[in-house]
Amino acid sequence: MSTVTIYGPAPSTYVRSARIFCEEKGVAYDLNQEIDREGAEYNALHPFGRIPAFRHGDFTLHETDAIGRYIDRVFDGPALQPSDPKNLALMDKWLTAITDYFYQVAVREIIWQRFLVPMQGGQPDEEMIAAAIPKLDHQLGVIAGDIGDSYLAGDAPSLADWVLVPIVTYLKGCPEGEGAIARQPAVGAWFGKLAARDSFAATMPPMPKAAE
Amino acid sequence: MSTVTIYGPAPSTYVRSARIFCEEKGVAYDLNQEIDREGAEYNALHPFGRIPAFRHGDFTLHETDAIGRYIDRVFDGPALQPSDPKNLALMDKWLTAITDYFYQVAVREIIWQRFLVPMQGGQPDEEMIAAAIPKLDHQLGVIAGDIGDSYLAGDAPSLADWVLVPIVTYLKGCPEGEGAIARQPAVGAWFGKLAARDSFAATMPPMPKAAE
Repeated sequence: MSTVTIYGPAPSTYVRSARIFCEEKGVAYDLNQEIDREGAEYNALHPFGRIPAFRHGDFTLHETDAIGRYIDRVFDGPALQPSDPKNLALMDKWLTAITDYFYQVAVREIIWQRFLVPMQGGQPDEEMIAAAIPKLDHQLGVIAGDIGDSYLAGDAPSLADWVLVPIVTYLKGCPEGEGAIARQPAVGAWFGKLAARDSFAATMPPMPKAAE
Repeated sequence: MSTVTIYGPAPSTYVRSARIFCEEKGVAYDLNQEIDREGAEYNALHPFGRIPAFRHGDFTLHETDAIGRYIDRVFDGPALQPSDPKNLALMDKWLTAITDYFYQVAVREIIWQRFLVPMQGGQPDEEMIAAAIPKLDHQLGVIAGDIGDSYLAGDAPSLADWVLVPIVTYLKGCPEGEGAIARQPAVGAWFGKLAARDSFAATMPPMPKAAE
């Protein structure tokens, strides 16, 4: 048994990011997908009931970015954060901006509509998806500007890239997302480099089929 | 003219947090409240149009937590972050959790209803406020548990406390918020200590009157 456990289902983009942090750092971990988000046991790990939660020995933590920063600080292995203060600030900016702006549009307004709603027997909200596309184009354009021909925060992948990669994985699996990424070649090239790493394959969830 | 500028209106809780970071660190700054969030000039500072934005010389940044981490790293002055990795992880956790969970309930569902909606000539949504109170009680209970008799992330105030203080300031100005804080004496004691500091008075916005 590893001293590190990540709690949450593998298809969650945030759970996958936390797993990639461990894979990239070279930290052995257990993935516990059998959680009851409403139950007292999980509530002790994450009193707001979201995913993932994290345990290292008797220290518990939640919030994906906090988990990533902690892993990078306390374990030996390749750096997951830039050392230059300005690149570090870019990483910090994107860690928040991905959750506050990009997740809302890419995941809630497109990915959930194309993947999750049909799995639950519903119909995708085509109006919501159509309204999301110009917002997605704007956001991917800003992301492409910071990526240039490298990564979100400098010349090496950082926590911010690893929070974005699982979302882009799903985006590429539905036509609107694939189209928007095709309009930003910098994002496609960035994704190709990160998707070639072992951490990507080791954490790839079963890919659901997108419904139209 | 200072080399540091914070952009955004003084009543914003996030703008106030960014100002407190500067005050606590001892960094001189200009506050530019005359921004057009839809305009091209501000869009260059913050392509997602939120507040605050930040400039240090020719380096620009957005996202309040990223601004705070940057200020703490590049300027001399008192530390705004704990040094112990576990306390640092607690600070990271709260910086995200305050925005992701607490802001939604405290600001969107209570403070805006009591302050902003009446200022715009509307009626507070009493049903929304009533439904928010048990959620607020739960969240303040979790916060009180981490504060104990000190601060959110150890024995000294950190960025996380300074993101929370402006929200609690408004909460105390409306009856539901004041009541919820009275039920968590640890939060009231914590607030009293932080409200006694110079950075608090120096950044206090004009307090609107809560409407019932």
